[in-house]
Amino acid sequence: MAPFEALFVPDALREAVSERAWLRAMLEAERALAAAEARAGVIPQPPPGVFALGDLDGEALARDARRVGNPAEPLVRVLRTRWEHVHHGATSQDVMDTAAALVVREAGGLAIAELDGLAAECARLAEEHRATVIAARTLLRQAVPTTFGLKAAGWLVAVVQARELVADARVPAQLGGAGGTLAALGDRGVEILRLYAEELGLPEPVVPWHADRVPIARLGGGLAIAAEAAAKIAVDVALLAQTEVAEVREPHEGGSSTMPHKRNPVGSTLARACAAGAHAAAAVLMRGEHEHERAAGAWHAEWKALSDALALAGGAAWWMRETLAGLEVDAERMRANVRPETLSEAERFGGAERPEDYLGSADAFVDRALALWRR
Amino acid sequence: MAPFEALFVPDALREAVSERAWLRAMLEAERALAAAEARAGVIPQPPPGVFALGDLDGEALARDARRVGNPAEPLVRVLRTRWEHVHHGATSQDVMDTAAALVVREAGGLAIAELDGLAAECARLAEEHRATVIAARTLLRQAVPTTFGLKAAGWLVAVVQARELVADARVPAQLGGAGGTLAALGDRGVEILRLYAEELGLPEPVVPWHADRVPIARLGGGLAIAAEAAAKIAVDVALLAQTEVAEVREPHEGGSSTMPHKRNPVGSTLARACAAGAHAAAAVLMRGEHEHERAAGAWHAEWKALSDALALAGGAAWWMRETLAGLEVDAERMRANVRPETLSEAERFGGAERPEDYLGSADAFVDRALALWRR
Amino acid sequence: MAPFEALFVPDALREAVSERAWLRAMLEAERALAAAEARAGVIPQPPPGVFALGDLDGEALARDARRVGNPAEPLVRVLRTRWEHVHHGATSQDVMDTAAALVVREAGGLAIAELDGLAAECARLAEEHRATVIAARTLLRQAVPTTFGLKAAGWLVAVVQARELVADARVPAQLGGAGGTLAALGDRGVEILRLYAEELGLPEPVVPWHADRVPIARLGGGLAIAAEAAAKIAVDVALLAQTEVAEVREPHEGGSSTMPHKRNPVGSTLARACAAGAHAAAAVLMRGEHEHERAAGAWHAEWKALSDALALAGGAAWWMRETLAGLEVDAERMRANVRPETLSEAERFGGAERPEDYLGSADAFVDRALALWRR
Amino acid sequence: MAPFEALFVPDALREAVSERAWLRAMLEAERALAAAEARAGVIPQPPPGVFALGDLDGEALARDARRVGNPAEPLVRVLRTRWEHVHHGATSQDVMDTAAALVVREAGGLAIAELDGLAAECARLAEEHRATVIAARTLLRQAVPTTFGLKAAGWLVAVVQARELVADARVPAQLGGAGGTLAALGDRGVEILRLYAEELGLPEPVVPWHADRVPIARLGGGLAIAAEAAAKIAVDVALLAQTEVAEVREPHEGGSSTMPHKRNPVGSTLARACAAGAHAAAAVLMRGEHEHERAAGAWHAEWKALSDALALAGGAAWWMRETLAGLEVDAERMRANVRPETLSEAERFGGAERPEDYLGSADAFVDRALALWRR
Repeated sequence: MAPFEALFVPDALREAVSERAWLRAMLEAERALAAAEARAGVIPQPPPGVFALGDLDGEALARDARRVGNPAEPLVRVLRTRWEHVHHGATSQDVMDTAAALVVREAGGLAIAELDGLAAECARLAEEHRATVIAARTLLRQAVPTTFGLKAAGWLVAVVQARELVADARVPAQLGGAGGTLAALGDRGVEILRLYAEELGLPEPVVPWHADRVPIARLGGGLAIAAEAAAKIAVDVALLAQTEVAEVREPHEGGSSTMPHKRNPVGSTLARACAAGAHAAAAVLMRGEHEHERAAGAWHAEWKALSDALALAGGAAWWMRETLAGLEVDAERMRANVRPETLSEAERFGGAERPEDYLGSADAFVDRALALWRR
Repeated sequence: MAPFEALFVPDALREAVSERAWLRAMLEAERALAAAEARAGVIPQPPPGVFALGDLDGEALARDARRVGNPAEPLVRVLRTRWEHVHHGATSQDVMDTAAALVVREAGGLAIAELDGLAAECARLAEEHRATVIAARTLLRQAVPTTFGLKAAGWLVAVVQARELVADARVPAQLGGAGGTLAALGDRGVEILRLYAEELGLPEPVVPWHADRVPIARLGGGLAIAAEAAAKIAVDVALLAQTEVAEVREPHEGGSSTMPHKRNPVGSTLARACAAGAHAAAAVLMRGEHEHERAAGAWHAEWKALSDALALAGGAAWWMRETLAGLEVDAERMRANVRPETLSEAERFGGAERPEDYLGSADAFVDRALALWRR
Repeated sequence: MAPFEALFVPDALREAVSERAWLRAMLEAERALAAAEARAGVIPQPPPGVFALGDLDGEALARDARRVGNPAEPLVRVLRTRWEHVHHGATSQDVMDTAAALVVREAGGLAIAELDGLAAECARLAEEHRATVIAARTLLRQAVPTTFGLKAAGWLVAVVQARELVADARVPAQLGGAGGTLAALGDRGVEILRLYAEELGLPEPVVPWHADRVPIARLGGGLAIAAEAAAKIAVDVALLAQTEVAEVREPHEGGSSTMPHKRNPVGSTLARACAAGAHAAAAVLMRGEHEHERAAGAWHAEWKALSDALALAGGAAWWMRETLAGLEVDAERMRANVRPETLSEAERFGGAERPEDYLGSADAFVDRALALWRR
Repeated sequence: MAPFEALFVPDALREAVSERAWLRAMLEAERALAAAEARAGVIPQPPPGVFALGDLDGEALARDARRVGNPAEPLVRVLRTRWEHVHHGATSQDVMDTAAALVVREAGGLAIAELDGLAAECARLAEEHRATVIAARTLLRQAVPTTFGLKAAGWLVAVVQARELVADARVPAQLGGAGGTLAALGDRGVEILRLYAEELGLPEPVVPWHADRVPIARLGGGLAIAAEAAAKIAVDVALLAQTEVAEVREPHEGGSSTMPHKRNPVGSTLARACAAGAHAAAAVLMRGEHEHERAAGAWHAEWKALSDALALAGGAAWWMRETLAGLEVDAERMRANVRPETLSEAERFGGAERPEDYLGSADAFVDRALALWRR
C-alpha cells in the first residue's frame, strides 16, 4: 500500500518496519518470554531453534490470521508444534505490543540517527553562516536582515527538541496475559515481567498497558513533530531555491521528464510529502479510546500507523539531512537580495546603513543553539 | 510499511493498489498518450511492445527516482530507449495523475463492489428482520423497542449514500504538459486531450488539475466516509456481540492465543481498524495547498495516501460484508433482552404491553430504505 | 474558545453559527414539529408565542444541560411550561439534528455565497488576464510560460467544484423519536415526518439518521474541500506577493506593528489559517462510529465542529474573495520575471522566442473553465 | 463558534481561554517588555496605567485587525497613544506568542488540576476496589477475571503519564523582534530577553521560535493525549453502564427529553466529545510548516486551536473527574456478571474455581500504579 516507497524512505528503515521485521520481533518477544520463565523456573529451558525464523512467512501468517484477527495466534500455533511451552501465560497482545516496542527501538533508532545527522548539518550551517546576511522574511515578505546562520540555528533547536521527544518516548515491554493480571503465572507475574523486560532490554511497564496507550500516542506525537521539524526546513529550502530567489540549490539533479535542465528541490519536496504522511499516521496513534482490557480495532490500527510514522519521520529527516549536506548556499545572492526597503527599517531604528550592522543578537543566538546541541 | 496487510485487505484490492499496479497504470497512461497523438497525426504509430511491462521494476524505478523526485521520469527514460516519441508533450505529473485515476478506477471499483456486497447484506438483514424486536439503545442504554430490521435499514441507507459518494468521485485523466498549457502540442492540445481521455476511458478534465486537487480530495473524503459507514456497522455488531448482550455472533472463529474457546468479533474489529487508517489517509488527500502549477510535496504525498484510502475503505467494507453474510442473529435473545423499563416508555405513551405493539413506523422505514437501495 | 474570531470570519456568518442561532433553530424545529402534528390532527394548534425566543438564553440552557448531556432537554422543559404538547413524540436528537440542518442551511448558504463571490472573482481574473504571460512554476521553480488567466481558471474550476460539494450536501430534517421508530406517533409517523420536513423546508430523510451520519460527514468533507480550494488560491497569491516575485499585491494594508511600510498578504494568510481549522473540524465530522441508535459522544462533538467548519470554510472563501476583488496584478512584472531558461524549453520544442508564442491551449482552457462556471 | 460550550468546559477554563484572557495576556506581555527594557535602561520607567485593560475590547481589536492580520498591531497602536515607548523593538508575534504562553500557563494549569483530580479519583477507585472482582473484557468479550481496582490502576497510570506530558510542555516567552535578531535592541537583546522571561515567569527560549514550533506542537500533542486518556476511561464507564452490564452508574441524572426515567452516561459522553475536538485541534497545532521567519497562516491558525485544545482537554478531564467522583460501583453485579466460561480459563490453567483465586498480579500492579502516582 505504499507505491514507490523506496523513493521516500531509506532502505534500512524500510527493512526495519517491514512485515519481516515485525515477525522477527514477535519471535524475539516469545524467546524472551520463554527465557524469563525458564529463569524463574516456571517452564523448562527452551531447546535451540524454537524461535528461529525458519520458513515462517508473514504473508501466510497474516492470511491465516483472518480466522482470529491477529498474527500472533497463528505464530504461536506454529511455535507450539516446535515446543509445547511457548507463549506460556501470555496473550496475543503481549507479543504484538512487545514486537511493536522492538520495532520502535530499531526503526526509531534509525530515525533518531537521521535526526542526529540532520541536527549536525543544521549546526554546521549555523556555524559556517554566522556572518552570511540574508533577508528575514515574515509572511513571505522581506522584513529586516538576519543571518543564514541564525536561520539554521532555529532549525537546529527545533530538530534537537523534536529528537528528544522521540528518544524519550521509549515503548515498554508488554506482558499482562489474557486479562492484564498475569493470572496464569500465579504469584510469579511481577518477577517474570521484570526478567522479561530485562531479556528484551526494554523498559519495564508499571502495569500492563494493553488498553492504556499513552506510550504509543506519545511516540506517535513525537514522530509527527520530528517529521514536521524536518518539513519546516524543507519549506524554507524550497522557498529559498525558488527561481526568483535562488539563494540555495539542492544537491540532487531533480530534472523533470520534460525539462532536463530544470533543477528541482527534490529532497525538500519528498521530506514535505513524508511529513504529511507522518502527521496522519500520528492521528491514528493518538486515538485513546481502547475499550476495556483490549480494544476491538483501535489497537489493530496501530501496526500500520506505527510503521508508517516511523518510516516517514525517518524519511523526512533523511531527505533533509541529505539535502542540507549537499546544499549549495549562495551567500552573495543572499546579500544582494536584501532590498533597500528592508534596510530602511534598520535605518529607522539604529541608523544602520549596511545589513551587517543591523544583526542584533543573531550571533549570540547561534551560540546558544550550538550550546544546546552540544549538550 | 503495512505489516500483515493481508489481514486487513482482500487480495485483489492489495494487488490493485500495489507498486506493480501503479507501474502498469503509468504504462497505460503513456500508451494512451502515444495512441492519441498518433491518431492526431502528431507522432507516428507506436511500434508494438513499447509499453510492455517487460522487466520493468517499481522498486528499481523508485530507487532511480531519488535523483528526480518522481518515478515517471525514470520510466520515461527507459521507454525512450524503446521508442523516441514516448511522453511527447507531457509532464511527469500527467503520467502519475492519470495512473492514479486508473488505479482509482480499478481499486475503487473493487471497493465499490465490496460496498455493494455490504449493502446487499444490510438489505437482506433489513428484510429478514423486519419483525425481529430488539432494544433501541441510545447513549448505550436501552431506550424503547425497535427492530433489528430497522437497525440494518439505517446501515443500508448510510452504505448506499457513501457508495454514491465514492462512485461519483471519478478522477479524470490528466494532461497539461510542463506548465498546464499543453504548449508542446501547439494548437492541438485540446483535441489530443479529448482523444487521450477517450483512449483511457476516463473523464476528460475541464482544465489540467495539476495543482487544483478537488477530484482527489473528493475521492479521499468519499472513501473515508464509506469506511466509517462500515465502521458504524462494526461498532454495532461488536456491541451486540458482547458477552452480556450476545444478540449476534460473528462467523469467524476468532479464538485467542490463550483462550481457544473465546469467540471474538474479528470482522468488526478489523473493519474498525481499517476505518481509522482510511480516515487518516483522507486527511492527507484533503490538503489543498498545492503551490502554483505543481506542488512541492503535497502532490507526492498522495500516492501512498490514495493507495491506503482505497485499500482500507475496501478492507472495511469487505470485512463487514463477510461479517454480515455469516452473522448469526439470535432473535430470541434480542427479544428477551428488552428490559421492562424499556417497555414502560411504551406504556406511558401508547399503552403497549408488548414491544411488538410499539414499533411505530419501523416497518415503513425499512420499506423506504429498501426502495432507496433498489433504485 | 475562538479568540479574535472577528478577524477570521465575516460577521453574518459568525452570527449564523452562534449559540443564539442554534437556539433559534431549535425553537424552529419544535415549532415545525408542533405545526406538523397539528396539521395531522395529533395535537391541537399551538397557541401563539410558544416558540418565541423570549428571554431564553443559550448559556443558561447549556449550564442546565450539564444534568442531562444536551441542551434540548432543558429547552423542552421550559417550553412545556408554556404549552404541554411541545416536543410530542420527539427526542432530543431530533431537535438538535434538525437545528443543525437549519444552521447548515443558513450558514452554509452564507458560505456558498462567499464561494460564489470567490468564483466570480476568479472568473473575472481568468477573463481579464487571458493574455497576461506569467511563468508557470512547478516545485516552486519556473517551468514554461503560462497565463495568469489560466492560473485563475484553474482556481475557478476548483472553487466551482468544491462549491457544488457543499451545495449538494444538504442536511435533512431529523425525526425519529426515542428509538428511531416514531413509535409515540403510532402509525402516523411517516406522514408527520413528511409534514415536518415540509414545514421546515428541509429534505425529508429516507429513515431517521440519528446514528448513520453520512449527511454530516459529507457536509464536513465538502466544507473542508472548499476551504482548501480557497487556501490553494491563498498560497499562490502569497507566493506571487513575495518581495522577490512581486507580481501581485493584496488590497489590505497589512502593516506590521514594527514596520508600518511593510505590506503583508493579510487575506491569504487568514484564509490559510481558516482552512487549517476547517480541515481539522472536518476530521471530527467524518467520524462515523456512532453507537447503536444514538452515539455517546460522537454526536455531541458535532455541534462545535459543525459551527467551526461552516464559519472557517466561509471565512476562507470570504478572505480570498476580498483579496482577489482588490488584487493588484502587475502584468509587466509577470512578463519580466519570465526567465530566459524558462523560454529555452519553448525553443526546444516549438522554436518560440517569445513567451506569448508558447502558450498552447491556455486560452482554450480559460474558455472551458468559464463555460463550466457559467453553467 | 462553540455553541453550548458551557456544557463541555468548566467555567474557569472557558474564561482562561477567552478573548478577554488573551487580551489580558497580550497586555501582560507588553508590560513585561517595558519593565525589562526599563530595567535594562533602554527606555524610561513606564508610567502607571499604560497596560491597564481599561475599555479595550477584543472584538473591536479583532475587527480593526482585519487591516493587518493580527490583533497585536491594533493593540500596540492604542497603547502607543498612552505611552510612546510601548512595544519597543518587538514584533506582533512576540506579543501573541508570549500571550499564548501565558494563556497556556493559566488554562493549562486548570487543565492539569482537572487531570490531577481525575488521577486522584482513579487512585481512590484502585485502592478501594483492589478486591472487587470484575470480568476482564478483550475485544468486548469476557476473557478472565480481573479487579475493578486494576482497571482503575491502568487508567491512573495513563492519566499520570499524560499529565506529565502536558506539564512538561511549558511554552517559553517569545522575543525576537521583526526578524528574530532583536536588532532594534542593539547588543542588549539577550539581556533583555532574560529580564523579559523573568518578568513573565516563563521559560527563556534558546532562540526566538517564531517559526520553529516544537513547543506548541508538543503541547498540542500532550493535550490531545490527556484528553484521550480521559476518553479511554469514559468509554469504559459508558460500556460498564450499559443496561445489560449495569456494573456502574454515573452520578448525573442524565434523563432524556422523552424518557425521564432513563439514566444516561452524561459525563462519559461529554468527555468523549471533548476528546474528539481536542484530537482535531492538536492536528492543527502539530503542523510544522511555518515559512521562513514567520508563517503566513500556520501561525494564525494556532490561536483558536490552542484555546480549543486547552479547553477541551480540560473539559474531558473535568467530566471524568466529576463522573468518577460520584460513580456508583455495583461490586456485586460485577462479581455476578463473571460468566462460567470466563472461569473455565482459570480452571484450565490454575485449577481455580472462584474468580477471586485467579487474579495473579492484579494487586501487585495496583500497588505499582499507586506508587507511581504518589511519586
